[in-house]
Amino acid sequence: MAVNLPLPQAENLNPVAGVELGWAEAGIRKANRKDVLVVRVAEGSTVAGVFTRNRFCAAPVQVCREHLAAGKGIRALVVNTGNANAGTGQLGLANARATCDALAAKLGITTDQVLPFSTGVILEQLPVDRLVAALPAAIANARPDNWLAAAESIMTTDTQPKAASRTVQIDGKTVTLSGISKGAGMIRPNMATMLGFIATDATVAQPVLQALVSHAADHSFNSITIDGDTSTNDSFVLIATGKSGAATIERTEGAAFEALRDAVTALAQELAQMIVRDGEGATKLMTIRVEGGKDVAECRQIAYAVAHSPLVKTAFYASDPNLGRILAAVGYAGVDDLDVDRVNLWLDDVWVARDGGRNPDYLEEDGQRVMKQAEITVRIALGRGQAEATVWTCDLSHDYVSINADYRS
Amino acid sequence: MAVNLPLPQAENLNPVAGVELGWAEAGIRKANRKDVLVVRVAEGSTVAGVFTRNRFCAAPVQVCREHLAAGKGIRALVVNTGNANAGTGQLGLANARATCDALAAKLGITTDQVLPFSTGVILEQLPVDRLVAALPAAIANARPDNWLAAAESIMTTDTQPKAASRTVQIDGKTVTLSGISKGAGMIRPNMATMLGFIATDATVAQPVLQALVSHAADHSFNSITIDGDTSTNDSFVLIATGKSGAATIERTEGAAFEALRDAVTALAQELAQMIVRDGEGATKLMTIRVEGGKDVAECRQIAYAVAHSPLVKTAFYASDPNLGRILAAVGYAGVDDLDVDRVNLWLDDVWVARDGGRNPDYLEEDGQRVMKQAEITVRIALGRGQAEATVWTCDLSHDYVSINADYRS
Repeated sequence: MAVNLPLPQAENLNPVAGVELGWAEAGIRKANRKDVLVVRVAEGSTVAGVFTRNRFCAAPVQVCREHLAAGKGIRALVVNTGNANAGTGQLGLANARATCDALAAKLGITTDQVLPFSTGVILEQLPVDRLVAALPAAIANARPDNWLAAAESIMTTDTQPKAASRTVQIDGKTVTLSGISKGAGMIRPNMATMLGFIATDATVAQPVLQALVSHAADHSFNSITIDGDTSTNDSFVLIATGKSGAATIERTEGAAFEALRDAVTALAQELAQMIVRDGEGATKLMTIRVEGGKDVAECRQIAYAVAHSPLVKTAFYASDPNLGRILAAVGYAGVDDLDVDRVNLWLDDVWVARDGGRNPDYLEEDGQRVMKQAEITVRIALGRGQAEATVWTCDLSHDYVSINADYRS
Repeated sequence: MAVNLPLPQAENLNPVAGVELGWAEAGIRKANRKDVLVVRVAEGSTVAGVFTRNRFCAAPVQVCREHLAAGKGIRALVVNTGNANAGTGQLGLANARATCDALAAKLGITTDQVLPFSTGVILEQLPVDRLVAALPAAIANARPDNWLAAAESIMTTDTQPKAASRTVQIDGKTVTLSGISKGAGMIRPNMATMLGFIATDATVAQPVLQALVSHAADHSFNSITIDGDTSTNDSFVLIATGKSGAATIERTEGAAFEALRDAVTALAQELAQMIVRDGEGATKLMTIRVEGGKDVAECRQIAYAVAHSPLVKTAFYASDPNLGRILAAVGYAGVDDLDVDRVNLWLDDVWVARDGGRNPDYLEEDGQRVMKQAEITVRIALGRGQAEATVWTCDLSHDYVSINADYRS
């Protein structure tokens, strides 16, 4: 059911010097399924991440924050699917640490050089023995050209692996970026998404890398929603191995910084949009663009109100231009001094609402034509300022209900 | 599909002296269907209302506010279904006023003694000629014992009419209250719901009646949600005809005030819960009770996050005790200093999460047993104060998607 989401081809995914990826089948929740990923990172790399703001953040998220703060230089990531290790208390925390201990011992590094990630069912304990038992197999098959298999190994309700690459010229050197992501439900990231990883062979100082990952997250994973449910495990990590030979980027300005920032952001957007295209039960990709706001915050507030409205989402599923539902969502979004008489609404190129009411020139058949498309832009002009924001979402279909009513069975 | 919602019986709905209700078939949207209601109110009655906070409030809501503010004494209400007269600009406002003009002329009262209400599709102009043409028929069949037919005449996607009565002793007099409501989708009232009307023959001073309607709304219609979509047309009106002979209630304190307040609130809760029981596609009624909060606002914030989570709602639909989804919603509700280690969760009598993690004594089969019930209480204890709040909601089923993907066809 994914919306315009072709299967990634392994030959289009570029190795990033200094990064090796290996998977295993640990039987965390189901047998015969890639469910463990180990990412080895060369010595001297910098790594930065952003994580969920859900107060019930998962045990591995807490450990990631600690290990990044330790500043010993991250050398490995370990990811499991099938179990989120969230709502698991002190035992969950101990299990996340035990996973890092085991991987560190096998790789001859220290525990705080490992970042752990988990995704899957909440409120159940991680089967840490099965996970640890699978680590040798994942280490053994770690290779630089394993990006597609890595994307497959972090899937849960995803119908397709999500991976992409690009290159950018910096200081006359070709810098490579590759990334993977996963997620199809419980998607309304707040600071990051349910697992996104990007690696580059650029050389980037730690504080600059942190600025880069935040910028990219805000313009990609933090601008998508499927069901409004912010996960307990959202994590987005950026790895810079420095193997491209390009000069170290030391400051958050200048041509090299901007080139890398734009490339990382574009790749993150592509990976984030892949999540929406593969949203649970999705049949349509909607781009909700709000412009003419007083500030970005109110534009995002309105865009999310529209993107989360079950009535808007089901109307898109039905290809029904029942567009009053969009105005209703704009009206209840919580912008208390909104003058609705200045609000205009377009569906792609079709001007639907003009100065707060139905555009006299709007024809139902024009709305119908756009609503039948697989990708639709909803543009809302508020007429009260210069700020703007864009959010990507998908429709709400019968399959969304089926997938989430059956998820654990 | 309604959850434990027996069809109201006409003989159980008590006439309220001073109120007559008449319906008609105007063909607003569909033929051969009760879609207009006229309520005549005796001279000397007091009337108070609360209305939607949606910025795109409908034309009739604006006119209601004006006419109540005029203070001439409301003598009639006119309600149509099939068209919300929202997002309709100046023409919509003119149509709402024209409806009041026509009814006032026929009843020999003034325009500002009429309150208009509309519900149905947004962004389409009201067929005011058909509505006005049907008024004589509605006036002709107005009777005190028409409460059931009145409830039928305001239905949209409701599967059943919603009406209830009760009596209360005040000053040794029997005071009667009867009410009707409608709504099954676009339900997350903010100050009131998509049409609720209660009449009583108590005698109540205007400012006291306004306090009563606000109190009742906060504890009933403002504590329910089906899909989180706040309607453009929410209206809840309380009528006091003074025909019971009980003394006038002049102040918001004392035994008579408290007796009437409790009776109005209980009746409003019953009518509000009827809306949730008949929620679009509903198979379950969930009571979300949050206690131990610092203030009521944060309790409501968390209760609504749980009640709106599509993942929580689909898990209830599936009778799947996938209860980590509830903790995730508590965590992302936006209470930034929430200490999750103090959070406890019960499903009816089953203690699921203890001190932020899975209760070691929790058995999946106990959760499963409760989840199979048609009515379930989710109790969340925050452990940070004495405040509490309760919200009622329903599950998210395949039928919700079907109903809203097909609504206009």
